[in-house]
Amino acid sequence: MDKVITIGRQYGSGGREIGQKIAEHYDIPFYDNELITRAAKESGFAEENFARAEDKATNSLLYSLAMGINVYGNQDFGFTGLSLDDRIFLAQSDVIRKVADEGPCVIVGRCADYVLKERENIVNIFIKASMNYRIERVITQYGEDSKKAADVIMKNDKRRANYYNYHVGEKWNDLSNYDLVIRSDFAGIDRSVACICEYLG
Amino acid sequence: MDKVITIGRQYGSGGREIGQKIAEHYDIPFYDNELITRAAKESGFAEENFARAEDKATNSLLYSLAMGINVYGNQDFGFTGLSLDDRIFLAQSDVIRKVADEGPCVIVGRCADYVLKERENIVNIFIKASMNYRIERVITQYGEDSKKAADVIMKNDKRRANYYNYHVGEKWNDLSNYDLVIRSDFAGIDRSVACICEYLG
Repeated sequence: MDKVITIGRQYGSGGREIGQKIAEHYDIPFYDNELITRAAKESGFAEENFARAEDKATNSLLYSLAMGINVYGNQDFGFTGLSLDDRIFLAQSDVIRKVADEGPCVIVGRCADYVLKERENIVNIFIKASMNYRIERVITQYGEDSKKAADVIMKNDKRRANYYNYHVGEKWNDLSNYDLVIRSDFAGIDRSVACICEYLG
Repeated sequence: MDKVITIGRQYGSGGREIGQKIAEHYDIPFYDNELITRAAKESGFAEENFARAEDKATNSLLYSLAMGINVYGNQDFGFTGLSLDDRIFLAQSDVIRKVADEGPCVIVGRCADYVLKERENIVNIFIKASMNYRIERVITQYGEDSKKAADVIMKNDKRRANYYNYHVGEKWNDLSNYDLVIRSDFAGIDRSVACICEYLG
């Protein structure tokens, strides 16, 4: 298996866990928060700014001005007219391309499918699940309040869809963007992983 | 495996062949043109009318009038205000529900996912493939003229998308409609089948 695997996922669908298990199966790196950390270190952005990049997909001139024109320290990539969020996205994209250059790996979220779209060795996967399954999962696995679970899921999905639509310019739930889409709660996490590994070969 | 499997597919993606192989794997019935034949016999419609139902998704008052108000012979299901295409769709839907009642099977096309959407034992699959793969396939497998292949594919996809959108009221390429979406040319037909069977259990 010589591919870079990107995973998009509905909130609470188990996409992150599935990604980890695929990475374990092939003994390849897994990037999620690690990606944020690495990007933050390399670009000089504070980690918390990266963490909130998926929370907001807006242009903010004030932020850009407040951050100064050269957030990369000595490097100036010509991003100076962009919002903070756009610059964070570009720095993340740079990291995604670097880790993809290093060899096969699993990258969850952050529009990695779009960032790497010109490459040959990419497989783009999307994990979805029924709302009932996701509610159960965010309560039991993430410790979410049972009364708020459905609301939290919908807000996070909306946020991810907006993030994708803003940066990619295409709809998050358009199957044209993916090679494989799996509803995880039909087969369960482990059989979904087995199915993906069968597909990847 | 106790499921009814519906398969939507891009033109030239190998969806029909994958469906046949899944049916063979589980030794369950496969419905495609057989479905048309059976529907035609049961409803009294001429077979060629069913064959062209996916070709047009339009309301035609003239057709309805020309066909008379009671196309079901002695039975009148109250469809008399509907176009011929709508009545064909309803008759097909009736057949889809009947074959699904008989037990596990594979049904290709004809919005079977939508017709059976209230049922518990349904798995909805969509097969897609890259344009290059589909061009190659329609030339070698369907004997299509190489100069016309891309055009034929786009027209047929458009037709199927219109048919789905018209009858289901949702977008054909919205991953929300499916449990599993597979790009067949990445893994090839046989490994795609193996992947689906792994998923189904």
